[in-house]
Amino acid sequence: MKERQPYNMQVRLNHIFLTTQGNTDILDITQKVSECIQSSALLNGLVTIFSPSSTSGITTIEFEPGVLQDLNEILNEIVPKDFNYQHNEAWHDGNGHSHVRAALLGASITIPLVDGRLTLGTWQQIVFIDFDTRQRKREIIVQIIGE
Amino acid sequence: MKERQPYNMQVRLNHIFLTTQGNTDILDITQKVSECIQSSALLNGLVTIFSPSSTSGITTIEFEPGVLQDLNEILNEIVPKDFNYQHNEAWHDGNGHSHVRAALLGASITIPLVDGRLTLGTWQQIVFIDFDTRQRKREIIVQIIGE
Amino acid sequence: MKERQPYNMQVRLNHIFLTTQGNTDILDITQKVSECIQSSALLNGLVTIFSPSSTSGITTIEFEPGVLQDLNEILNEIVPKDFNYQHNEAWHDGNGHSHVRAALLGASITIPLVDGRLTLGTWQQIVFIDFDTRQRKREIIVQIIGE
Repeated sequence: MKERQPYNMQVRLNHIFLTTQGNTDILDITQKVSECIQSSALLNGLVTIFSPSSTSGITTIEFEPGVLQDLNEILNEIVPKDFNYQHNEAWHDGNGHSHVRAALLGASITIPLVDGRLTLGTWQQIVFIDFDTRQRKREIIVQIIGE
Repeated sequence: MKERQPYNMQVRLNHIFLTTQGNTDILDITQKVSECIQSSALLNGLVTIFSPSSTSGITTIEFEPGVLQDLNEILNEIVPKDFNYQHNEAWHDGNGHSHVRAALLGASITIPLVDGRLTLGTWQQIVFIDFDTRQRKREIIVQIIGE
Repeated sequence: MKERQPYNMQVRLNHIFLTTQGNTDILDITQKVSECIQSSALLNGLVTIFSPSSTSGITTIEFEPGVLQDLNEILNEIVPKDFNYQHNEAWHDGNGHSHVRAALLGASITIPLVDGRLTLGTWQQIVFIDFDTRQRKREIIVQIIGE
């Protein structure tokens, strides 16, 4: 095995700020994550994109209007807005479905960084989904460990 | 870019031990994960929380009784206990739904560590969910890479 | 705290190549991931397994024929093939459900590496699921950071 330089493994923290429409608004954040990577100057490692919120989530999808509408409609079927949510009974903020959708989708994704680029597929984008029921200002954490 | 010290990037392994009630018992493990971080003395990096089991999962949620009940009831709708599970036909342990729920929710979450703290939102807790159909003793792995 | 050697934290990239049958074909990739780890010679850290595709996903499951069939049938209930997908209206490739399933399951999992082994449970395997509607050749990225 080739001898490697040890002294360049580092951690780099970045933030992405978004304004969303809520109501399962799906935003393509691929370009913003790529800018974080470029500013980090790291080439190889892991990139974790994390949403510090209990009513939103992160995943990847082909960012195409048909697929976005399809995901939205399937979510309306499996985690409907008008279910008898106990959260709504207690807090009257009407976002019980937002919490359940967020817990099921997950708040985090980790993607390999190779030669300065995310290893996304050709038709694969990183999306932030805001499940809350109103416009929100959101912050996403992008943490990179690499060399 | 400022010169950085190289020699403090490290890996730290921790375990969390739990006793659960099974039956989609949802446990807040945020405090226990924070204790792992404190004992590691690492400040910045990535924290992976992993459940080494095929009938449980990890996610984040607002740990509020209404939301916990809502998640439970939605799971009863989409992955019901009384579906005709082939796993139950073969093994007669009655936890076919537990396996499917675990596979859909996911066994792992990775959260950024910044200045010695998890970057969780104000209303966001880390939960372990035991989908098995009986009381279990569980072990969770917390692996931290950071500096 | 014991003094530790700093100079061995490294990043190792590996690829896994698969041929799948599509149609929610579920493949056990645990052995292939373990081979990536052995070839990396790293002992402790994090392993991210990522699918660079928008019609497939990664999770863990007990790789037992009954459970695999159960997961498949539950997915047919919650993200059915014959829903009125807008993606299919636009592109006529009939894989609208594949995209939605992939977005919900997630493209990535991160697993701790401890003493040269994945911390999987006894009955827990890593699976790649191909949701597309035809045979595919697939590539999976395995990125390891560790020492």
